[in-house]
Amino acid sequence: MKLRVSTTLTYRFSGPTQTIGLIQAAKSPDQTILDENLTCEPNASQKCEAEPDGTRRFRASLDGEVAINYLATVDNGQRQLLPATGSQHLWSDLPLEVLPYLLPSRFCPSDRFQRFAQREFGNAGDGVARVMAVLGWVHDHIDYVVGTSTAETTAAETFMTRAGVCRDFTHLTISLCRALSIPARAVSAYAFALEPPDFHAIAEVYLEGAWWLVDGTRLAPVEGMVRIAHGRDAADIAFLTTDRACQVVAQIIEVSET
Amino acid sequence: MKLRVSTTLTYRFSGPTQTIGLIQAAKSPDQTILDENLTCEPNASQKCEAEPDGTRRFRASLDGEVAINYLATVDNGQRQLLPATGSQHLWSDLPLEVLPYLLPSRFCPSDRFQRFAQREFGNAGDGVARVMAVLGWVHDHIDYVVGTSTAETTAAETFMTRAGVCRDFTHLTISLCRALSIPARAVSAYAFALEPPDFHAIAEVYLEGAWWLVDGTRLAPVEGMVRIAHGRDAADIAFLTTDRACQVVAQIIEVSET
Amino acid sequence: MKLRVSTTLTYRFSGPTQTIGLIQAAKSPDQTILDENLTCEPNASQKCEAEPDGTRRFRASLDGEVAINYLATVDNGQRQLLPATGSQHLWSDLPLEVLPYLLPSRFCPSDRFQRFAQREFGNAGDGVARVMAVLGWVHDHIDYVVGTSTAETTAAETFMTRAGVCRDFTHLTISLCRALSIPARAVSAYAFALEPPDFHAIAEVYLEGAWWLVDGTRLAPVEGMVRIAHGRDAADIAFLTTDRACQVVAQIIEVSET
Amino acid sequence: MKLRVSTTLTYRFSGPTQTIGLIQAAKSPDQTILDENLTCEPNASQKCEAEPDGTRRFRASLDGEVAINYLATVDNGQRQLLPATGSQHLWSDLPLEVLPYLLPSRFCPSDRFQRFAQREFGNAGDGVARVMAVLGWVHDHIDYVVGTSTAETTAAETFMTRAGVCRDFTHLTISLCRALSIPARAVSAYAFALEPPDFHAIAEVYLEGAWWLVDGTRLAPVEGMVRIAHGRDAADIAFLTTDRACQVVAQIIEVSET
Repeated sequence: MKLRVSTTLTYRFSGPTQTIGLIQAAKSPDQTILDENLTCEPNASQKCEAEPDGTRRFRASLDGEVAINYLATVDNGQRQLLPATGSQHLWSDLPLEVLPYLLPSRFCPSDRFQRFAQREFGNAGDGVARVMAVLGWVHDHIDYVVGTSTAETTAAETFMTRAGVCRDFTHLTISLCRALSIPARAVSAYAFALEPPDFHAIAEVYLEGAWWLVDGTRLAPVEGMVRIAHGRDAADIAFLTTDRACQVVAQIIEVSET
Repeated sequence: MKLRVSTTLTYRFSGPTQTIGLIQAAKSPDQTILDENLTCEPNASQKCEAEPDGTRRFRASLDGEVAINYLATVDNGQRQLLPATGSQHLWSDLPLEVLPYLLPSRFCPSDRFQRFAQREFGNAGDGVARVMAVLGWVHDHIDYVVGTSTAETTAAETFMTRAGVCRDFTHLTISLCRALSIPARAVSAYAFALEPPDFHAIAEVYLEGAWWLVDGTRLAPVEGMVRIAHGRDAADIAFLTTDRACQVVAQIIEVSET
Repeated sequence: MKLRVSTTLTYRFSGPTQTIGLIQAAKSPDQTILDENLTCEPNASQKCEAEPDGTRRFRASLDGEVAINYLATVDNGQRQLLPATGSQHLWSDLPLEVLPYLLPSRFCPSDRFQRFAQREFGNAGDGVARVMAVLGWVHDHIDYVVGTSTAETTAAETFMTRAGVCRDFTHLTISLCRALSIPARAVSAYAFALEPPDFHAIAEVYLEGAWWLVDGTRLAPVEGMVRIAHGRDAADIAFLTTDRACQVVAQIIEVSET
Repeated sequence: MKLRVSTTLTYRFSGPTQTIGLIQAAKSPDQTILDENLTCEPNASQKCEAEPDGTRRFRASLDGEVAINYLATVDNGQRQLLPATGSQHLWSDLPLEVLPYLLPSRFCPSDRFQRFAQREFGNAGDGVARVMAVLGWVHDHIDYVVGTSTAETTAAETFMTRAGVCRDFTHLTISLCRALSIPARAVSAYAFALEPPDFHAIAEVYLEGAWWLVDGTRLAPVEGMVRIAHGRDAADIAFLTTDRACQVVAQIIEVSET
């Protein structure tokens, strides 16, 4: 799909605030950025960088009320969807850079899910079948309810309270996959047809020598995702990390097909 | 110092177990490996790799009772100690690869310590002074007591229960530094003069353009450390990560000056 | 003081909902109810009871939108304030009915605070001095910030995040007192001069053979409290406990001197 | 059954320690104490009391190494077992003294299980059928594994890690029942045929106007229980609560049929 992204994030900072932003579409192999534009109002000096894997990050010191605008046109047509069958790798066959995604992280304490995951999904078949079983379980057992979780909620809490939003679905999916020795990570995205429009968080699993996007919420088609960043969990892919509290004034996100 | 490390780790695996080992001294700029030898009894095929930063990792599928032996002579004379003064960096001045160490992780939920850290250490002076204040606080407020923590204990729990071992002191030190916007990570090490001899976990902070080892436990001199690996917290630097439970039969570690 | 309480609580129930209400002033020895009136609109059958200690509780099955109105005039002039000195009891000298208030509860996990409490307050003097030290510590180290805690927040979390509202101040005060072997419980109250007007939660400690109200928030004078109920923590004294989620439509509380 | 209980608990106290003991069989309506003897070696002054419901408690200040011996013969033949069918009560029909057992407690945070309990057991039939469904679920989903839990483990953790001992099975059973609006409490007992012999913790639910013992572990028959004490959870029924840490030297429990 060819997608048009338009984002305006307005914050009020009470004093000079260090920020790290992850809101630009990634220059990753699975999508092509046709055009884009990132600006701040009032204008602010930004340090923009791209990592080797295509993730783009900006750093800036911001103060007062600032609107961050991002416009982009992205073609994600190269993206492949999870195949119908496929194996998970032995640890010894995984690329070195994939190994960290086997390990527990801030919001995905996969070490605590070992016994449950083995009991529930241990006999679910090959790697793809296990991932599909995890996605089905999360969809069937967790209610999507706005307001039941906070920025501190971990997958352990979602597992118990059985409710959350996309971030929580993703953390639980990741935790269960890691507990099954399947590398899994969190991806932030702009999602076509997501209602209401918002930043979206989905999971990505490593099988058959590649990463595959999967969405436990089933709220938006994986085909309509514009990838922003990936990391161990929400802590790594926050669209704005700040060194002190700030206030969100407005957040407008639009994704349309062109 | 020139140090001799001798390690024998014996495990009993009940079925083929995937393992990732981090027990070899790092080929890092702050130390030189003069000689070393890694073997398994009975012999097992290992995949040994070095990361660009010098960390060495082996991967193997192990079964039955296996002894992992490691012998090495290491000169750590190039290591610099934390200077008496020095500034912390603005986020925009940090190297890209240092940024992850600002973020919360499995055992270091630094996001939950923001208010305490600012209240307690916000006015402690420059970066070095703040780190020294954190180290002093941890030493003064946490009791070193074996048996009060487990492999699931986070810095949040140590902060409350006020007791732990080296791993817990390190997690709390890291959490507080990150909450002060100082990048901090966990380092595994062989430690000269540690009683009783064991793997040691210490913290490393980024100030003045470099990483510096610091030890909240004060149980062994930083000058006598042989670095093994570093990561966000204990999850990343476990000397043996396995995909199923196994039994520790014996663990012998000796570090002597040569 | 002679105080006039006027309360209107309006809820929307989506289906027949079992409720237990604790909103009437207690007929306790430290206050006299001069007049009172409890009604529901629309009218609903209530089962009203008084416990031997004076706590009044109503039970009702409610549905649709219901307004609970409570009007009362209360003279709390008999209440004594915490004396300047006084001892805590040996456990063997405590009345049997006081013993449960030594033990940890849902929101007051006092067992986890033992080491901290002993370190910080162990040498603070007699029982009253220790309670005053706890109250001072809570006031100095916790910020009163609306929105930082939820109905699931425990004293352990407040201790770490260092922010909360009256309920959180009270839970932390109780936890620390119990960790010092001083019986402590939670009390719900209507509070004169509380801004904004709301139900108030305060602590009560047992010293010198009696219970004494103390308020870690310092937001309203203890002299202006109309006692409602007491219990181990907020779980026991909720003004409305329901067997299914319901919606708060409006909550109006007024307390004035007559 | 007529049961003979013989208990010797030996502790080492490092300084005068306040203790509350709950090790005597209850003088409750469901059992008769034929003879009994409680002694300390060396002799220590104890304050022994019986509550109106038959629970017996002793309080003592102990120091040095002390052996607490308890011998009793108990006939529990009056005890009724959970009937095959039966309803749970409306809240308004419950006796006042049963209400606290609807509420969350230190180790049974039933408020966090609402959604799961309703989803899983909401349609399981009448009160007895729901309790049987809970007991079956706990038995099928939790592994009995010594060493996986500690004295601080809550039902929330057991629900996630899926392993524990009798205390954990009981806390989870209680939490799920309370989340279904069925009053539930913890009971300590001497259990005939428990292997290895130990204090046992089981649950008790209120249905059809009475309390019924139920055991999620299925390790010992309910018919062979000698009741000691009941409470909201393990915090209330610890066989020894102390105001400072002490060391267990030996613990011998024998239960035989006479």
